[in-house]
Order: sequence, then structure tokens, then C-alpha cells
Amino acid sequence: MKSGLLIDVKFDGYGKYQSFQKQMPDRRIINWSDEKNRPSDLSNINYAIGWHPDKGLFASMPDLKVMFSIGAGVDHMLQDPTLPDLPLVRFVDASLTSRMSEWICLQCLLHLRQQPSYDRLQAQRIWRELPQPDASDLRVGIMGMGVLGQDAASKLIALGFQVNGWSRTRKDLAAVNCFEGSELDAFLAQTDILVGLLPFTQETSGIFNSELFTRLSQSSALGGPIFINAGRGKSQLESDVVLALQSGALRGVSLDVFEEEPLSRESLLWNMDNVIITPHVASVSDIDALALHIGNQIERFESGLKLQCLVDKRAGY
Amino acid sequence: MKSGLLIDVKFDGYGKYQSFQKQMPDRRIINWSDEKNRPSDLSNINYAIGWHPDKGLFASMPDLKVMFSIGAGVDHMLQDPTLPDLPLVRFVDASLTSRMSEWICLQCLLHLRQQPSYDRLQAQRIWRELPQPDASDLRVGIMGMGVLGQDAASKLIALGFQVNGWSRTRKDLAAVNCFEGSELDAFLAQTDILVGLLPFTQETSGIFNSELFTRLSQSSALGGPIFINAGRGKSQLESDVVLALQSGALRGVSLDVFEEEPLSRESLLWNMDNVIITPHVASVSDIDALALHIGNQIERFESGLKLQCLVDKRAGY
Repeated sequence: MKSGLLIDVKFDGYGKYQSFQKQMPDRRIINWSDEKNRPSDLSNINYAIGWHPDKGLFASMPDLKVMFSIGAGVDHMLQDPTLPDLPLVRFVDASLTSRMSEWICLQCLLHLRQQPSYDRLQAQRIWRELPQPDASDLRVGIMGMGVLGQDAASKLIALGFQVNGWSRTRKDLAAVNCFEGSELDAFLAQTDILVGLLPFTQETSGIFNSELFTRLSQSSALGGPIFINAGRGKSQLESDVVLALQSGALRGVSLDVFEEEPLSRESLLWNMDNVIITPHVASVSDIDALALHIGNQIERFESGLKLQCLVDKRAGY
Repeated sequence: MKSGLLIDVKFDGYGKYQSFQKQMPDRRIINWSDEKNRPSDLSNINYAIGWHPDKGLFASMPDLKVMFSIGAGVDHMLQDPTLPDLPLVRFVDASLTSRMSEWICLQCLLHLRQQPSYDRLQAQRIWRELPQPDASDLRVGIMGMGVLGQDAASKLIALGFQVNGWSRTRKDLAAVNCFEGSELDAFLAQTDILVGLLPFTQETSGIFNSELFTRLSQSSALGGPIFINAGRGKSQLESDVVLALQSGALRGVSLDVFEEEPLSRESLLWNMDNVIITPHVASVSDIDALALHIGNQIERFESGLKLQCLVDKRAGY
């Protein structure tokens, strides 16, 4: 009898659990969100999938061997101080990556082509041409140059943007001018459109704040810097984002992630000019691809092969 | 003394004429839009630039040798039955091409990622995830596969879309499934997002109409076909676009060109859901690049070299 797989993800409905059952027909799939399904005995369950899992849950599984996150981020699991010292596998697949790049390219183009301004003119039935720079006049600076950042960079370059990248340790990429941790000042001074793709760690907590925004290039062909965040909401201070928009330190913003989600209905961000809000949908896991990935990793593990997409828990990603 | 250059373009202000004077300091640049500057004698002027030029003007220039359009389209000049039988040079440069691709990629991504729906949710401060297909689930069909269509195709492919192309004569391109004139039915049946990049000719007049819209794929992952037009406004029947949006035959529309420009304030299109209107700005000529192009062509012509970007007046582009 193969080991069971516990899922504590709070999926809507039951369809998503069926994807896992279809992928792994010979395993018991335990939907922890449904209290009726909770086994009294958690022994003999070797695998668990979590997204903001109940604190202490994984520590209470005596036979747990591998933990899985359903996304690229794992901060929601590392926050649990009782998290067992076991391999933690995250999910980065082609679909997650290409969806993230779709969203980032869309937001960069939206601000480049001043679509929010044209939307306002359209609502007033006004036909008016705005002065328009080229993509090649603008420097997109990506903070976080992992799989997602590198894919976004190559697509932004294809669209004509200049692209710089910043990461804790310098990446060596052909088409992208790369900066390392200590070179943040130089990187920011050459950034017209800042794209956040950082994991949430102690170092990145609140990194997108008033002080950082003032270090962005002041010579953008768009008249001011743009801030785009699709990494983690707790990397940004939303009160500072609002102030920067009000003062003109930022000319526009696209946010998919927030300090608290869902974003409070009271947030000023919802109705500010040149602010685009999406509800943490930039890159949503395709459930069949996720089930396939986890099924594959469990097979590798049981065949004695090395797990892929392993998280470095000290680095936090 | 080098020949003068007459410009009948109705540019705003005088800055743009200075770009031509700077590029060709040894030629007289005649701004026809300013009546004070109109010479009583048009002889000895070999070159003329037009954008909707005064009818009969070019025919009244006894020494005219080459005519220039400031854009890729030339229908505005070919409409003049008195247009002399002289070489007509259009303007297709890297900046015009990349700007057009920026706009087309932006509009395809806007509809793919349901940005108009998210904009409406944002205005109501509603946090709600919408079901989301991948770019790879969608087939963009481009009508008009010249320089602009081919560049847009390659960038849409980089973003993950499937791309088909249709043109009067079949193009042979590696990554794009190409259809020719007679295969319009097959092309439309495989198109989820239709992109119009056609020149205005007798054959394309009103081609985007109710009958054509019903031939588009009915199985789009977005729930219905999208129509995007950045070619020529007279290729579309706007009353049919409105009807198709109302009936659901079209799910969304992005238009940069219109039957009459500016678009009438009375048009229903301004305020319909999932309709994006921009004021013929998808690809606006960069004036310095235009002046450089025309200066270069005049030099080629006077050195006995072949003119580039020559229009086939019978084909209409």
C-alpha cells in the first residue's frame, strides 16, 4: 500500500482534489480542509502539501518525509516555527513562469503606453494623443533574478525594453545587465520601471519603501518611476507607496500582492490614478500541472532519486 | 542649389519642421500648412511629403520627382485621382514597427489577462480571482503579414501565444502558420484573437463586418472572440462591431483606427464593456527617424540608387 498524501490548502470545492487523485490513483488523498475527512491517526502519511497550513500540523505527522508548497513562494510555511526539518519542495513550472511573465509584460506595457491615461480619456470620450516614448527608451529593473525574473527579462527584451537585474548573488546572463546585493544603489539609479519578484525573507521585509523609491532614476522618459510588485506583499510598505504616488516620487504602480490579502476595502490604493490592482493572480498554479509535478517528485523520492525544486530553508527560498 | 522639399502634413506647431531642416540643412523646407509660407511658384521643387495632402496639390508641382508618406499607409494619398504617376515612398522604420508591436502585444495581453474586468472590480474595491487561460491556449490570427505583422507575430510568439497569419499572397515564415487570400475561412475558424493590420484598399474596405465575425472560432478559452484593429479604420464597419459586442459574437475589442477620425463623441463604442479605444496612436512616427529616412531616400535618389520602401500603387501598399 502506497503512502497517503495530506493536502492542507483550503482549495475552493472538490474539483482540485480530484486532479491529485487522478494523478495518483493508488494513493489516499486526504483533504484536511474538510473536517469530516480528518483521520484520527496521521501515521503512515509520508507526504503533505500546504499553503498557509495549520500551524503545528506538519509537526504532528510522525511519518512525514517530504513537504510541498503549491507555489514558488514558501514563506507561508517557513513562518511556522514547528515546521519539521524535512525536505521542502516548491512548485515552479513552465505554466507558472509564463503566466508571471504575461502579467509583468502586460503591466510594463500598460504603463509604457499610458493605458490608464487613455482609459480616463476614453471614459470622457476625449480623442487626444499623448507624447509617447519607445520601450527602448525605458530601463526595467527586476529585483529577484530566479527562474521567474530571468523569463520575464527575456520577454521584456524581446518587446524592446532595456532590462537590468538585481539579486542577492550576481547572475551571469547574456542580455541582462546584472547587479548583486551590494550594488543596489547603482541598480536603482538606472531603473525607470522597478519590478519586484523577491521572495519574502527577513532581508526583503518592507524593502519597497519611501527611502528606496527616492533612489530610483529621476530621468525616466515617462516623467517618473513606475513600481510593479508580483513577489510578496510584505516586501512593500503600502503606506509609503500611497505617499510616493501622492508626492510624485512614483508615477504609477501595479500591485498583485499586498501586506494583508485580500487588500482591505479601506485602502486608498484601490482608487488612485495610475494604480492597477489585481488580486494575487499574476501567476496562479495550474492544478493539473501541480498534481503532475508532485506526483513526479514523490516517484523520484521513492525511487531514490534527488528531489527537484528543493527549498534552501536558510535562504528562505 | 539643391531642390526644396514641400511638406503638407498639418503638423502641430513648428518643432517638427525643424527636424527636417536639421536633417537637410541645405534644402528649403516648405511648410504648406502655413499659408504665409506658400510659394507662388512651385517649380524647382522635386520632393513632397504628404499626409492627407490637399487634393491636386502634387499634380500642380511641375518638377515633382518623388512623393513621400509619413507612415506605412498610403491610402490617404492614393485617394487623390490627380496624384501624379511618380515614385511614392512610404515610411516603415524600426521605431514604427516596434511601437506597433508594443500596442498589439499590450492589447492581446489586456484581453488575455482580462484587465478590463479587473479594472471594473478594482473600481468597486472587489477582490475576486477570475478563471484564467494561458497565452498558449489562445490563437492570435493576424490579417496583414507585412513588416508590421511579422514583427508582431514574433513578439506574440515570444509571449507564448499561438500565432496564425493571413495575407493576400502566402508568406513563408518559420514559426507562423500562414494562410493566403483564398484560405480566409480556415484562418478565421482557427482565430481566437483577430488582429487587423491591413492596408486600406478596395478589397479590405469594410472587411471586418458581422459576417466575418461569425466565422471566428467559437471555442476560445476566453469565452468568445476578440477583435483588435490597428490597420485602417475603413476596413471595419463600426455599427457591426457594436452589434457583435451586444450579441456576444465578439467578447472584446481594441480599436486604434476608425471609419472617421476623430471618433465621433456619439459613438456607442466609447463606453461599452471590454472595448478599448486609443486615438490612432498605436504607431506614431518618430519625427527624427522620419526626417532621417526621407533625407536618406533623397540622397539615394540623387545618387542614382534605387529608392527603398516604394509603394506598389496598383496593390495599394
